[in-house]
Amino acid sequence: MLTVLAGGVGAARFLLGAVEAIDAAQVTAIVNVGDDAVIHGLDVSPDLDTVVYTLAGAVDERRGWGRSDESWRAIEQVRRYAESAGVDASAAVGNDAAGWFTLGDLDLGTHLYRSSRRRAGIPLSAVTAEIVRTWGVGVRVLPATDDPLRTWIETVDGRRLSFQEYFVREHHDVEIRAVHLSGSDEARPAPGVLDAIADAEVVVIAPSNPVVSIGPVLAVGGIAQAVSARRERVVAVSPIVGGAALKGPADRMLRELGCEPSVAGIAKWYAPLAGTLVIDAVDAHLASRVESEGVRCVVTDTVMDRPGVAAALTRACLEAGEDRSPG
Amino acid sequence: MLTVLAGGVGAARFLLGAVEAIDAAQVTAIVNVGDDAVIHGLDVSPDLDTVVYTLAGAVDERRGWGRSDESWRAIEQVRRYAESAGVDASAAVGNDAAGWFTLGDLDLGTHLYRSSRRRAGIPLSAVTAEIVRTWGVGVRVLPATDDPLRTWIETVDGRRLSFQEYFVREHHDVEIRAVHLSGSDEARPAPGVLDAIADAEVVVIAPSNPVVSIGPVLAVGGIAQAVSARRERVVAVSPIVGGAALKGPADRMLRELGCEPSVAGIAKWYAPLAGTLVIDAVDAHLASRVESEGVRCVVTDTVMDRPGVAAALTRACLEAGEDRSPG
Repeated sequence: MLTVLAGGVGAARFLLGAVEAIDAAQVTAIVNVGDDAVIHGLDVSPDLDTVVYTLAGAVDERRGWGRSDESWRAIEQVRRYAESAGVDASAAVGNDAAGWFTLGDLDLGTHLYRSSRRRAGIPLSAVTAEIVRTWGVGVRVLPATDDPLRTWIETVDGRRLSFQEYFVREHHDVEIRAVHLSGSDEARPAPGVLDAIADAEVVVIAPSNPVVSIGPVLAVGGIAQAVSARRERVVAVSPIVGGAALKGPADRMLRELGCEPSVAGIAKWYAPLAGTLVIDAVDAHLASRVESEGVRCVVTDTVMDRPGVAAALTRACLEAGEDRSPG
Repeated sequence: MLTVLAGGVGAARFLLGAVEAIDAAQVTAIVNVGDDAVIHGLDVSPDLDTVVYTLAGAVDERRGWGRSDESWRAIEQVRRYAESAGVDASAAVGNDAAGWFTLGDLDLGTHLYRSSRRRAGIPLSAVTAEIVRTWGVGVRVLPATDDPLRTWIETVDGRRLSFQEYFVREHHDVEIRAVHLSGSDEARPAPGVLDAIADAEVVVIAPSNPVVSIGPVLAVGGIAQAVSARRERVVAVSPIVGGAALKGPADRMLRELGCEPSVAGIAKWYAPLAGTLVIDAVDAHLASRVESEGVRCVVTDTVMDRPGVAAALTRACLEAGEDRSPG
């Protein structure tokens, strides 16, 4: 059994490779919910949806998130109202009425369904299982927690932004001072999460943003402890390749938080949790720096832009993790 | 100035005639919000939207509500999830996850915008004004109240249904015992409502369902008193023609609540509030029964299915109301 700690796009592509390499029924994804948000009153879970849409073959491949064959009729109407009313997106936290969070019409169906079910008292993990079943996805997809957990970004210019405000509205083009998680003290792992970590042959930390994708997963009570208890079986895949994030602001965030944006910095970041770090061939010259952090280093292709790379990456992770003594 | 107490489709068609007959800036609509609902977490105001879309020329003319050129991509996705999960629409109050409440993609834009604004603390009346302005509608459209007011239907088989569950989910095909309004004791008229009634040359009660469209408007604190204070200037248009409602369950509801579904029954129903009742030519033989309720009777064409009828109806109402001594 393979368990993957997952954020959004990078993790989804890794998981797509995993189900090429092994039986989907053997794969569990534990997905970040720190960037979940209530947008226009709807419960939006971006990373869960990216993972499910990708595994279902329904994702927009160019963007890496959202639905293929999408339309934008609802949100265009929202923007028409906002423009007419002079609603200023930057005016206040939560002013999503300006339509800066782009929701496609098909994607809205998922948010509407999730919102209804949650208001009827169904936990996020159970609604997610319904959505996964509808799509015929074989991977078990678990939110890290059913409890409220939110990522907040403190900027150098003194603002406190929700993750989506930082990421979508500000295009992560703002210097950050710190990342805070609200709710992490009370958040308990969703049903099945701790067992999936304890029972896995290998636990993979997907090539997602360590700060705002993997960080909130690990912040849920008991998850970091469960992962570190399996350290010898835990394999992280570096989201930094050649000193930069393939997508998103991971490199910039790491730097602003005082961490070197390199595979060496990632090794140091994950050293308490992961016995192995998989790095890309372009970073092979840094393998000794990785190992000097007390982390075994595996070098392979990690850029999942060609067929076969993701599946080979899964196999490399499994080999690396299974090599080790039981953790 | 003309002030119209309004429900949905019938009132919207009347208002469309009013702006043909007189300057739109002279018209105020006070609209029912008793059948507002939270659907999938979104604030839905069906009567307000029907009035605005109709006046904007954006309504689906065949249905009489919703947007023309509409698509249903989001709600089809909701239904796919619900079917897969075996979500039973009739299982519980509020189980809108089954997708029985059909929301079009364009229409969703209105609900998303309204929901965002209300969560930001903007009252319904102010959001409605923004929506009206966006559409370039000249009529002033006021919700009866900014406070929560909800219509509940008690059925003979012992269920308590929200209005939308009764109307949309059950297709109003169920015998009712009573209609309850929750929140009416606390609900205050929205800004401008009482003045619009007091200052109008004529107040028209539109040909809407007296029980569940006009009833909730009148139940808001002070509105019924303000209307009855202008009784000689108040003109009701009968929603019953030839013993039947043109649309919807008004005839059936009146009967089940012990009121004769005829223009005579309507005259009795509105007698405390309206000095005049306008009835259709097909009911001319009942004029004396109307007048025996102490209500002056005007006979004209009231079925707004041909061009010009609605405008002529407005003119008939204005004449009828202005004829009277100041109320």
